[in-house]
Amino acid sequence: MIIWLAASMTVLLLWNLRRVRCGVLTVEIEHVDVSTMERLEQQGVDCQPKASTIRIIQDKYLQKVHFSRHGIPLPDFMQIDDLEGAKRAGDLFGYPLMIKSRRLAYDGRGNAVAKSEEELSSAVTSLGGFGRGLYVEKWAPFVKELAVIVVRGRDNAIVCYPVVETIHKESICHIVKAPAVVPWKIRQLASDVAHKAVSSLEGAGVFAVELFLTSDGQILLNEVAPRPHNSGHHTIESCYTSQYEQHLRAVLGLPLGDPSMKTPAAMMYNLLGEDEGDQGFHLAHQMIAKALTIPGANVHWYDKPEMRKQRKMGHVTIVGPSMGVVEARMNSMLVGRGYDGQPASVPPRIGIIMGSDSDLPVMKDASKILTMFGVPHEVRIVSAHRTPELMCSYAASARDRGLQLIIAGAGGAAHLPGMVASLTPLPVIGVPVRSSSLDGMDSLLSIVQMPRGVPVATVAINNATNAGLLAVRILGAGDPDLLARMSQYQEDTREEVLRKAEKLQSQGWESYLNP
Amino acid sequence: MIIWLAASMTVLLLWNLRRVRCGVLTVEIEHVDVSTMERLEQQGVDCQPKASTIRIIQDKYLQKVHFSRHGIPLPDFMQIDDLEGAKRAGDLFGYPLMIKSRRLAYDGRGNAVAKSEEELSSAVTSLGGFGRGLYVEKWAPFVKELAVIVVRGRDNAIVCYPVVETIHKESICHIVKAPAVVPWKIRQLASDVAHKAVSSLEGAGVFAVELFLTSDGQILLNEVAPRPHNSGHHTIESCYTSQYEQHLRAVLGLPLGDPSMKTPAAMMYNLLGEDEGDQGFHLAHQMIAKALTIPGANVHWYDKPEMRKQRKMGHVTIVGPSMGVVEARMNSMLVGRGYDGQPASVPPRIGIIMGSDSDLPVMKDASKILTMFGVPHEVRIVSAHRTPELMCSYAASARDRGLQLIIAGAGGAAHLPGMVASLTPLPVIGVPVRSSSLDGMDSLLSIVQMPRGVPVATVAINNATNAGLLAVRILGAGDPDLLARMSQYQEDTREEVLRKAEKLQSQGWESYLNP
Repeated sequence: MIIWLAASMTVLLLWNLRRVRCGVLTVEIEHVDVSTMERLEQQGVDCQPKASTIRIIQDKYLQKVHFSRHGIPLPDFMQIDDLEGAKRAGDLFGYPLMIKSRRLAYDGRGNAVAKSEEELSSAVTSLGGFGRGLYVEKWAPFVKELAVIVVRGRDNAIVCYPVVETIHKESICHIVKAPAVVPWKIRQLASDVAHKAVSSLEGAGVFAVELFLTSDGQILLNEVAPRPHNSGHHTIESCYTSQYEQHLRAVLGLPLGDPSMKTPAAMMYNLLGEDEGDQGFHLAHQMIAKALTIPGANVHWYDKPEMRKQRKMGHVTIVGPSMGVVEARMNSMLVGRGYDGQPASVPPRIGIIMGSDSDLPVMKDASKILTMFGVPHEVRIVSAHRTPELMCSYAASARDRGLQLIIAGAGGAAHLPGMVASLTPLPVIGVPVRSSSLDGMDSLLSIVQMPRGVPVATVAINNATNAGLLAVRILGAGDPDLLARMSQYQEDTREEVLRKAEKLQSQGWESYLNP
Repeated sequence: MIIWLAASMTVLLLWNLRRVRCGVLTVEIEHVDVSTMERLEQQGVDCQPKASTIRIIQDKYLQKVHFSRHGIPLPDFMQIDDLEGAKRAGDLFGYPLMIKSRRLAYDGRGNAVAKSEEELSSAVTSLGGFGRGLYVEKWAPFVKELAVIVVRGRDNAIVCYPVVETIHKESICHIVKAPAVVPWKIRQLASDVAHKAVSSLEGAGVFAVELFLTSDGQILLNEVAPRPHNSGHHTIESCYTSQYEQHLRAVLGLPLGDPSMKTPAAMMYNLLGEDEGDQGFHLAHQMIAKALTIPGANVHWYDKPEMRKQRKMGHVTIVGPSMGVVEARMNSMLVGRGYDGQPASVPPRIGIIMGSDSDLPVMKDASKILTMFGVPHEVRIVSAHRTPELMCSYAASARDRGLQLIIAGAGGAAHLPGMVASLTPLPVIGVPVRSSSLDGMDSLLSIVQMPRGVPVATVAINNATNAGLLAVRILGAGDPDLLARMSQYQEDTREEVLRKAEKLQSQGWESYLNP
């Protein structure tokens, strides 16, 4: 039997654990009576993670001291016992200054910001005064907040989930994007810091490591939670193993599951109470009704009996084939409700671009193929030589807009495909368009002979049909339906040729050529 | 309140429905007391699907008559009332002959095969005699069994899940493959038949349509279940909306969810009782322990109190990035337990092939890039002109082996890339290898100038590095981690060039060239 320790469980209940057959004791929140947990450990109850870990984590100041001693990068901090101490901290760290409660702080509770020395006193008062135990943190000038769910097994094996971005609103988690759209090196650094932080704690289970990404590319630890966490809710739908199953695997000593994502992208939106009572429920139900119309959206309603403003009442996770598609779906759910709230149409997966409208009679064939296979795409004029800025912005933003591939056609000194390929990590297909001289050989060589480092997938001169077919094959590498349709296309083509062969054989070439 | 009607619920319980606030009555199995359901309908209880549908489906003979009247293709059948009738059916349909109970038949129970007229009597006896209501079906010479989960909303909107293949063992569902590996046209045909079958029934909910695929490409209806079904268990992990959520959406009149797959491939394995009692539990636990070590495997244990041979005790669904990968994982789980049971290693995602070992000094660069990005791949010699049969079998089997892309290098009359592209729906990257004459222009034109219909993604002459990078971009179209790493690679390359630029600027060109 596993027993999950909640904050509401009393010491009496805990003492009764010895009487039931408790295989493992774990926690669903860190704000539990840790002294009791320690006594239970002494009596042989198997606690995962260990009481020592809970003791460190439930006091945010102790947590900072602990991680600082283990060489984990984190914002400067110091304990304060009175207003003088707070002022000294302000002189040292500057303003704005974060003042935090050491205990029972989460979802923005227990944090206060003093923008200047004058605000120190009221900030301290809002936190209940020095008696509750306060400390200050130097303001971390972060550009993004990241988080990593880290799992440690009983054998101390550690696996990390993909780094996510957490977007907060009034200090409460609002949206989680998985994976975080940050450079790969930043993701590696964030994973490394999270791994190191969890390595310094004792016991098995899921840990959530919240991080700051600063403008100079540093990763600083914010705090750690010793349990499944809001930043990992998306894993239920988007990862091979959800954080909840993973926590059970970890504390029970089962093999850890694969933490990687089974869908390319996910976004989680917290359903926070927007109003008290019935009106709040009414607004939440409106949002849920909207979510039920969004493809890939999964509604979780916690069925809490009481609705309060800013209370986490549930969440919606949207998954999809790319972050662009997922964002469009999220926008569509949130029209008129914050986020960027643009109404979403089906976002294009492929961009077909060409240097001039004179290329259109050739390039239209790529669009015809994509339409035939039902692949949403856009067709644009983007010239390397006449609209270089447009070319740069088009290529640089393509991935974030949700494009998965670009088909670029150009003739002569055909720079468009290669330049676009140098500005995006997406695959780029180049179509050499026959120019007025050289029969298109100039276009072909300009496109295919790219330097080492930047490939362009080049097709035959003027053969935009093949560019479209290649694009379908490329998307098909991760989409079995599209691949099955490509097989069918090949089968149909074969049958068409065989029909002609049969006609030639039965009629003879003379009548075939002169029907 | 929704009430799920199970076979075990008594008429008394049903009559009490009127006293509780029952919003919708639905069924978890078709073997319920349909007369009571009809009376409840008359009294205004909202049943979804309708009692009329349950009445048709729970009698397999009536079901066949119903679908036959609605023009759904199905094997020939006829009612039999005595041995003379059975013999007449045998004369008409030939042997082997399927004899089936009209009622309470599932998981192979209620079916018997007579291989000859002599076996008719014992087959009938094994089914409990004519008194139970029997009919015969002409043996369907199927090559595969397929199934489609179809959902109908209260507004009669219909959506279909992807067609799956069901593999039976002793008439019990053993393995489900999603999507079915059959031609696209067969999938469309199967969906159409399933859609038409469900359209002919009344009421909302999930329906499972079991089908036969015959050797001549026909789809015949086997039977329909008016509820979530074993062939749809994979949807829990592999589809945007599980069949269970979908059933609730349907019967409640909520918008139907997206039925498409969020992972490219899934396989479901039924945990059937292998033995009675404790030994049976022991064997099942062994299998579960194995499953917990398999990436992408999800264990479902139904916690049934009693273990019996061939009883469905749970199931395991394995999902992954391609059917090849999922099959390798399934093999690894089932080593020594049937299926094909080969021990699995990490299956390659990319095949690098070349016409001759003389191409290896060029082609090795593609392998170096793939290794750098951590993409599992294989390197093979496959010559179009000297091993044409090997080339055909390699290309034709590539997709089923789990390859997602092929890089082919060749020189001179370079036929390998184009021939391979004509034999597979996968994307093929061609590397023109410089030949002894013509500076590789022969290789380039042989590879890039493919006819309309069969594209090869051609890179620069001898530039296998770019072939590797293009392959990473192509897999990255569906894999954000790989795409993020490609961005990082571009960033690193940029920094390297900028360092050189700085050095040139600070040292001047003379000292740069003569350090």
